Amino acid sequence: MGGCKVTIHITWHDLTIQKEDRNRLNGHRGAVVWLTGLSGSGKSTIANALDYQLYQRNIRSYVLDGDNIRHGLNKDLGFSEKDRVENIRRIGEVAKLFVDSGQIVVTAFISPFQRDRDIVRTLFSEEEFYEVYVKCPLETCEARDPKGLYEKARSGEIKQFTGIDSPYEAPEEPELVVATDKLTVEESTRKIIRYLSEREIIRL
Amino acid sequence: MGGCKVTIHITWHDLTIQKEDRNRLNGHRGAVVWLTGLSGSGKSTIANALDYQLYQRNIRSYVLDGDNIRHGLNKDLGFSEKDRVENIRRIGEVAKLFVDSGQIVVTAFISPFQRDRDIVRTLFSEEEFYEVYVKCPLETCEARDPKGLYEKARSGEIKQFTGIDSPYEAPEEPELVVATDKLTVEESTRKIIRYLSEREIIRL
Repeated sequence: MGGCKVTIHITWHDLTIQKEDRNRLNGHRGAVVWLTGLSGSGKSTIANALDYQLYQRNIRSYVLDGDNIRHGLNKDLGFSEKDRVENIRRIGEVAKLFVDSGQIVVTAFISPFQRDRDIVRTLFSEEEFYEVYVKCPLETCEARDPKGLYEKARSGEIKQFTGIDSPYEAPEEPELVVATDKLTVEESTRKIIRYLSEREIIRL
Repeated sequence: MGGCKVTIHITWHDLTIQKEDRNRLNGHRGAVVWLTGLSGSGKSTIANALDYQLYQRNIRSYVLDGDNIRHGLNKDLGFSEKDRVENIRRIGEVAKLFVDSGQIVVTAFISPFQRDRDIVRTLFSEEEFYEVYVKCPLETCEARDPKGLYEKARSGEIKQFTGIDSPYEAPEEPELVVATDKLTVEESTRKIIRYLSEREIIRL
């Protein structure tokens, strides 16, 4: 009975593995790093770099982004307002399953509306959900235009494109802001990792 | 260049963590153990017992079942044929994300139709998807009736209940059959774990 406190959540009558058990096995807690920002702001780049940095620290993390969601779980959804709401709802619910499984899940979606992000937030405890604003001026995002989407939006080929003819609502109270026109990818990920450490999600 | 072969999937230009990297970190591969069977056959019990046994071996696993899916991701779905198909499709897609993240995911859903299970199977490689038939005679399941659902189905309170007024299609070629009227929960999970070991998903 020294200074080491060990909580065992398993009894003979309750053989269900709980989130706390998984966190103990992993040596870190589960959480959502919800990246939000304009197209071209660097969400996917930061998400993958963060995933890489966490992996190097033996932390279980996973990225949810357009690549693995839009062509899979949400391939039945289009870009109507109803479908965009449902898109974010499902991503939130999947993120919840990943957190329950003990992982740190990094989401990289524009998720332009505060209301939708707030709904996702309600699925989690305060220590589990971190809204990170990947901040970058529209002009810079448009100059980068990594997928050529702004050009298509300007020419009218794509309608209702966030920042052009559909609004982007910047987070009102994000846990963290990462200004990608000022910080490098490495500085951005380091900032997020430091924050996760301060919140005792991970130990450095 | 001795007998130890190490594959590194990371280059300076490709900092994306791949499934193989996660498998190396975990010391096991990701896979789906897709339990299918009648209500009351013991799917959830086996799923949780299996999850417990895997956890004890430091294996990252997670259970998808009615409790965490029907009230979350799929809470917009009812029990029409269209919704039942969509229910299974989404579970398959979520399972794919979990396998991609390196975990062993155990699903516990009646999933009565071969066609729907076959569609899910196409999402995975041959080494990743294991259909396990949790086999138990209808009379035994009905006698167990852990949730009182058979009673409600017989009285007509629940319509289209699998085994009563909706068919259950037993797997045509399951990877494994677990007969829960003959095996204990411990014997059932041991059989699945042995199989996962033989298929080199895990090492015992």
